[in-house]
Amino acid sequence: MTVAANEKKMPEPRNGVDTPVLFATINAVGAQPELAKFKFRATNRWQQGTHSRTRIQSFYGAGSEQMHEREFAFDADHPAVLVGRDQAPTPVEFLLHALASCITAGIGNIAAARGVTLYEVEAMVEGDIDLQGILGLSDEVRNGYQGLRVNFKIKGDAPKEKLEQLVEQSRRRSAVYDVLTTGVPVSITVNAG
Amino acid sequence: MTVAANEKKMPEPRNGVDTPVLFATINAVGAQPELAKFKFRATNRWQQGTHSRTRIQSFYGAGSEQMHEREFAFDADHPAVLVGRDQAPTPVEFLLHALASCITAGIGNIAAARGVTLYEVEAMVEGDIDLQGILGLSDEVRNGYQGLRVNFKIKGDAPKEKLEQLVEQSRRRSAVYDVLTTGVPVSITVNAG
Repeated sequence: MTVAANEKKMPEPRNGVDTPVLFATINAVGAQPELAKFKFRATNRWQQGTHSRTRIQSFYGAGSEQMHEREFAFDADHPAVLVGRDQAPTPVEFLLHALASCITAGIGNIAAARGVTLYEVEAMVEGDIDLQGILGLSDEVRNGYQGLRVNFKIKGDAPKEKLEQLVEQSRRRSAVYDVLTTGVPVSITVNAG
Repeated sequence: MTVAANEKKMPEPRNGVDTPVLFATINAVGAQPELAKFKFRATNRWQQGTHSRTRIQSFYGAGSEQMHEREFAFDADHPAVLVGRDQAPTPVEFLLHALASCITAGIGNIAAARGVTLYEVEAMVEGDIDLQGILGLSDEVRNGYQGLRVNFKIKGDAPKEKLEQLVEQSRRRSAVYDVLTTGVPVSITVNAG
């Protein structure tokens, strides 16, 4: 989608995406790149054992402090087989949610931009992890996942190849795919006592 | 904690961690490393626009198929300023939840193993992202976070230095910290049409 094509024929709202507003937003950020600088935040509090709760509401972006319309809260825990109380999924399962939902959000937007009406998008994600790492039983086994597999099922009013290209373009522009495959610097500070 | 120390003085349950069961689990996996092989899974379905919903229940581990005690469901969306309907946090915010909750779960376990009673653990996480990447406005700006910062506040019945060491040891054994800082191979397949 070039700007010229965009001017010739603005895509209509589709797939629940307000496509004209999406293009206006992209154009506004293109004209004022500082609007693209975002900071996302979360505050986590330990509950007991391996159980904790994260609250998410404020973020910075589009040039000013922002708030989600409401505060969101999510727990994490270990299952009984890992000596937790199974109050919520494990932290590593939230990585799978983040990956699938990021690529799927992009598919919704890109399909709308390309004039494709989606009927169904489903992603199944699976990750392999050898817990000898986190249990401290081996220094040769990594702590994290050894590999992730995602299978997308996608249906819409476009040929198979065009639907496949939506997934591929979304992968190419996915923030979570980038972080998970490439890594990101993490700095940790501690106030103790 | 060496096995010898472990035999001399088994730590008692503490911080909501059943420490004897935790050590028995680690010993069982040490004797039978194939028990450490886990597969975690999630299934995500597109709702509309940038909104999708992930369901998490089954996983494989400890030598057989397992189920969380109940099915967990989580949404993700974009906020209004990013042309979504703000039904849930963004996918990249779930990465912050995963990171904080993973290190905090480890702190609960490690503190129990070391005989430290925790009073409070809080983690604030913030990540910088420049959306020129995902908006397709720049090929020089990465799609994902450029950096993450975590600040832990931790209180317990141990000296400041020992509390700081709990956070450091948990970071060293965190599955999510490993994946986010080092990356993981992700393979994507598509069934279209």
